[in-house]
Amino acid sequence: MPQPNAPSARTRLVREAGRAVYDRAAAYKILDEGFICHVGFVVEGQPFVIPTGYGRVGDSLYIHGSAASRMLRRVDEGVAVCVTVTLLDGLVLARSIFNHSMNYRSVVILGTAIAVTDANEKLEALRLLSEHILPGRWAESRQPNEKELRATLVMRLPIEEFSAKVRQGPPIDDEEDYAFSTWAGVIPLTLVAGEPIDDARLMPGIKAPEYALGYSRKR
Amino acid sequence: MPQPNAPSARTRLVREAGRAVYDRAAAYKILDEGFICHVGFVVEGQPFVIPTGYGRVGDSLYIHGSAASRMLRRVDEGVAVCVTVTLLDGLVLARSIFNHSMNYRSVVILGTAIAVTDANEKLEALRLLSEHILPGRWAESRQPNEKELRATLVMRLPIEEFSAKVRQGPPIDDEEDYAFSTWAGVIPLTLVAGEPIDDARLMPGIKAPEYALGYSRKR
Repeated sequence: MPQPNAPSARTRLVREAGRAVYDRAAAYKILDEGFICHVGFVVEGQPFVIPTGYGRVGDSLYIHGSAASRMLRRVDEGVAVCVTVTLLDGLVLARSIFNHSMNYRSVVILGTAIAVTDANEKLEALRLLSEHILPGRWAESRQPNEKELRATLVMRLPIEEFSAKVRQGPPIDDEEDYAFSTWAGVIPLTLVAGEPIDDARLMPGIKAPEYALGYSRKR
Repeated sequence: MPQPNAPSARTRLVREAGRAVYDRAAAYKILDEGFICHVGFVVEGQPFVIPTGYGRVGDSLYIHGSAASRMLRRVDEGVAVCVTVTLLDGLVLARSIFNHSMNYRSVVILGTAIAVTDANEKLEALRLLSEHILPGRWAESRQPNEKELRATLVMRLPIEEFSAKVRQGPPIDDEEDYAFSTWAGVIPLTLVAGEPIDDARLMPGIKAPEYALGYSRKR
């Protein structure tokens, strides 16, 4: 097991250090609720940020690569990346403009992402990624063939250098502002799954499965 | 008015070119529904990706800087950034694992972000940013004083080099897979605002305002 994360100079939070969470279990809880990350990488000095799906497996993140083609052209030796996962929980309305904020939980991971090239390992990585996003779905789907597997890119990023940041709860106003006559509080925000929409070409008698009917990221 | 965006070599989509949207109005619709961006920047070769709030005003993005302290230390001459906004609309369950996807709308902007330093301009930028996120709130809040204004960082990014990517609709399976007996369809996902939560120290008789009760990003 890796040791608990000690913040490096690169992941130590400079501002709002009170919101920092360096503990691995807390970061993993955030990573397990999320399934979309923003992957940052550099090409000729220019940063790029691309959204894509991921799954956490132990102390690694598997990142689906098809959206990050630029990154993946140079992927054999590994790519320096920053992977950020953000869960938005609410708008925080303070009495003063200055103390307005948002409730959120985020994790930033720095490291080198490496393409998974071995076919068996890639298949297993895809299964784990799929189980992270939608548990139960893999077994009920038509499995990848060799050609599809070759056309799929999966990166593995070890979770070594990371930090997490959490802001929760009510607004915090300056003491003298509590007498300012305006509403204050939190507008909660949640990613909500709606009723599953049947594909128009479903075979007769097939109903939406449990994992689609009751989809939720809360663990 | 800037010309309609012609994709540069850097923003042209390499994969899944069918999902590319280069038209400015379509990109602005996405930017106007969102209010959280992921800002990518480079420090000594290492990419960083930080979530923060933004507002679109004409052909510029105003980006709230307090979360991006690393970036903002070097901000006087401007910082090369990639700003990505992602709206997640659903999980797309195909019959084959390979054709699983997500419905989403995203915009990627490349450019140089510059700190807004003039006090009047900064105040106006903050007002516009605030109106983007929560229209109506600015006027009902205690306004920023000089000290708070100095402590607030706002960046302006011209929207010149950008691309948008959209995937909507049902799964698209290979023709032979439509006979594979499993459910297929879409699980819609939406960011939903809940009932506003009153701050415990509200002044007597103050009720949550309309903009907090009926909060929605759909425009």
